Amino acid sequence: MSSPSRQIHLNAFLRNVGQHEAAWRLPETNVAGVTDIEHYRHLARTAERGKLDAIFFADHPVLKDRSQDRPWDSLDPFTLVTALSGVTSHIGLVATASTTYNDPYGIARRFGTLDHVSKGRAGWNVVTTANAAAAANFGFEVHPDPNQRYERAAEFLEVTFGLWDSWDDDAILGDKEAGVFVNPDAIHSIDHMGTNFRVAGPLEIPRSPQGRPVIFQAGSSEPGKDLAARYAEAIFTAQPIIEDAQAFYADVKGRVKAYGRDPAKVLILPGLSFFIGGTEEEAHRLQETFENLTLPTYGLAQLKRITGVDYDDHDLDAPVSIPPRAALAGDQKSRHDLVHRLTSSENLTLRQLLRRLSAGRGHRITAGTPEQVAGTIVEWFENGAADGFNLIPPALPTSLATFVDQVVPILQNKGLFRREYEGTTLRHHLGLERPSVGERGFKAAAE
Amino acid sequence: MSSPSRQIHLNAFLRNVGQHEAAWRLPETNVAGVTDIEHYRHLARTAERGKLDAIFFADHPVLKDRSQDRPWDSLDPFTLVTALSGVTSHIGLVATASTTYNDPYGIARRFGTLDHVSKGRAGWNVVTTANAAAAANFGFEVHPDPNQRYERAAEFLEVTFGLWDSWDDDAILGDKEAGVFVNPDAIHSIDHMGTNFRVAGPLEIPRSPQGRPVIFQAGSSEPGKDLAARYAEAIFTAQPIIEDAQAFYADVKGRVKAYGRDPAKVLILPGLSFFIGGTEEEAHRLQETFENLTLPTYGLAQLKRITGVDYDDHDLDAPVSIPPRAALAGDQKSRHDLVHRLTSSENLTLRQLLRRLSAGRGHRITAGTPEQVAGTIVEWFENGAADGFNLIPPALPTSLATFVDQVVPILQNKGLFRREYEGTTLRHHLGLERPSVGERGFKAAAE
Repeated sequence: MSSPSRQIHLNAFLRNVGQHEAAWRLPETNVAGVTDIEHYRHLARTAERGKLDAIFFADHPVLKDRSQDRPWDSLDPFTLVTALSGVTSHIGLVATASTTYNDPYGIARRFGTLDHVSKGRAGWNVVTTANAAAAANFGFEVHPDPNQRYERAAEFLEVTFGLWDSWDDDAILGDKEAGVFVNPDAIHSIDHMGTNFRVAGPLEIPRSPQGRPVIFQAGSSEPGKDLAARYAEAIFTAQPIIEDAQAFYADVKGRVKAYGRDPAKVLILPGLSFFIGGTEEEAHRLQETFENLTLPTYGLAQLKRITGVDYDDHDLDAPVSIPPRAALAGDQKSRHDLVHRLTSSENLTLRQLLRRLSAGRGHRITAGTPEQVAGTIVEWFENGAADGFNLIPPALPTSLATFVDQVVPILQNKGLFRREYEGTTLRHHLGLERPSVGERGFKAAAE
Repeated sequence: MSSPSRQIHLNAFLRNVGQHEAAWRLPETNVAGVTDIEHYRHLARTAERGKLDAIFFADHPVLKDRSQDRPWDSLDPFTLVTALSGVTSHIGLVATASTTYNDPYGIARRFGTLDHVSKGRAGWNVVTTANAAAAANFGFEVHPDPNQRYERAAEFLEVTFGLWDSWDDDAILGDKEAGVFVNPDAIHSIDHMGTNFRVAGPLEIPRSPQGRPVIFQAGSSEPGKDLAARYAEAIFTAQPIIEDAQAFYADVKGRVKAYGRDPAKVLILPGLSFFIGGTEEEAHRLQETFENLTLPTYGLAQLKRITGVDYDDHDLDAPVSIPPRAALAGDQKSRHDLVHRLTSSENLTLRQLLRRLSAGRGHRITAGTPEQVAGTIVEWFENGAADGFNLIPPALPTSLATFVDQVVPILQNKGLFRREYEGTTLRHHLGLERPSVGERGFKAAAE
């Protein structure tokens, strides 16, 4: 299925000292790295050494439950990628920010500025924030429901696109002789008056190197997929098995096409966690090392978030059966389906289930040799399941370095991944064009 | 008046290609520098080479009038200083941000993160935003009046201080053996329920290297001075003559004392613009070079903002007399007083007045040899008018480099300015202590 020119896209999802909930307890982990910029500089440079497309940080505008059990992403992701712009030169810088708990003028300013100061490497992962507890940090009585959040997100994106496009590319004249710095006719107010926002504009920032930061999106709900089909240029998704990933891929690419957009210009990047060993057995032993350090208190809290059910009184060493979710179970639907499937198809104890979920809930987990991990990547890439991956290293910096040193060369040798950066912008890495002013790309409605 | 240990504090106020409205028209000016990170990196490194305390950027969350006549600060100041954290190691990084058009949780997160990623170099210049046009970018029908804005600012600061203090300094245990990452009893909600904000907290960020970013403030209105006296650790002010500066200095230090704070720990930094030449005549010729490039359209728009009166139909070469301001003339009071005084004491034509104002409206402007500029600095520093200066280079990078190379050594030779950084945090440079958790420093009310 692959054409000679189609290339795998690899993004590194950097979660403090690792995605695995027990990564911080490994002897080699530097716990201080959670807030230490040197740790993140090292990660960014390692990813850039591996010629990855981008590094990416999640957003939690609230302290997570069970913070005593593991470190969370605590630094503000936008501020962190901006700080890393100064110590990298090529790799894309993707930060998550919420459309529910920000205002569009502020987001347009900050990400527009990041695109300037990084010379065209900015990406924005647009989220509506799933964690209801965030509401209380922003003066909201209740967290808006998903439909409200996605409606606001769509309007938010229209406003930010309008602001990023409010200067024509040739607005700056810089005519010293005539004393004309800009052509005022090339700078446009947006005068947006909508349901959620009223924003006059223009932005005070000239158009940025990429025209607009690259829009990333995630979310497998119906309104989430619809928003992604209209606006996203790269899509993160959690898919544990290839069949599900293929169905998601076909679904979303179809929606993209229905909106009149080119499906090849909307990249689908499932999450991939990996335990790499010299032999398959070594890889499984490595995974077990992590699992042996998990704390049941943490896994139980996560299981409660996913299912809505409290398993605290359930015997950890007795079999557990997670019932299928109710139709409107909330924001953790696909994760609930996963745990239901796991406990239906295998006779797991509660402890075994918690261990199984410890590397990441809902993402593809691989354990094997570098060749096996590369094999999974190529299999998904060549069989309509992925355009690349959102790599989720279980421990940092170690797992990232192992991937860069051992898996990337295999993909390079297959001719499926760049050996050197061929451009300096994130759009270039991703094979995406710079949008012209006012360009949306999608028709007003699908079909 | 100076004790042997009292040292001058110097902050560089960096305005794109220079504060002077005509700086961009000089032959040597690189107009592309306005949005070019390399330009700002060079400025930051030049300031750091000069061992200055900090660099500082203003905030305009709206495109300014007459943008065709000169470049404005267009990049978001917070994002810009964050990007510069990666290419500097010692200099303080001060960004302006508005309490009127931000939310406290977002500001606490971003500045708290900046303090981490810069290893203790963050400063926040707290403003309430004077430009009424900003309201329309943030969904406000009208710009709130100064009293409303300052009341909101005080509550905003209480919330951000609470959030920055929501983790005890020893909250992170990192006990791998016991499986306890943090002590949850050392992380505190703030549960703020106020007039303007409801914020639960805690922040998701451990306490930062400086405890809190350094608080800068400006504003010469009564509520502005009162807010500064309670919360600010460094105060910017525009004072054209030493007598006014002395009066302001005595007034604010008195207010600080009345709140039970140590006046020596609240630094007053008037703005200082400078034209430096090998001789006094050369310096004046340099100033004239700038003035000859001014555009009357721009000066007239500024004069209208200051006075509320349109002088567009006034003959540029006829004498002009600016009447004294009405009691409630708005936000430009001290600048109105300045132009009134100028046209009362000298028989200026409108063109001459506009030229006189072109280097900066209300700040101290000096033109002279390096010794003369240093002399002004020392005179103000030793005579109760200043603890240091907010340097406002008319053209960038040239004027900053001249100051660093020619004026700084004179101050160093007098023993009044550091030859090397003695610490790595902005608080250390400014001689300010790291606040303990919950410490406010001021009594509930003045007197």
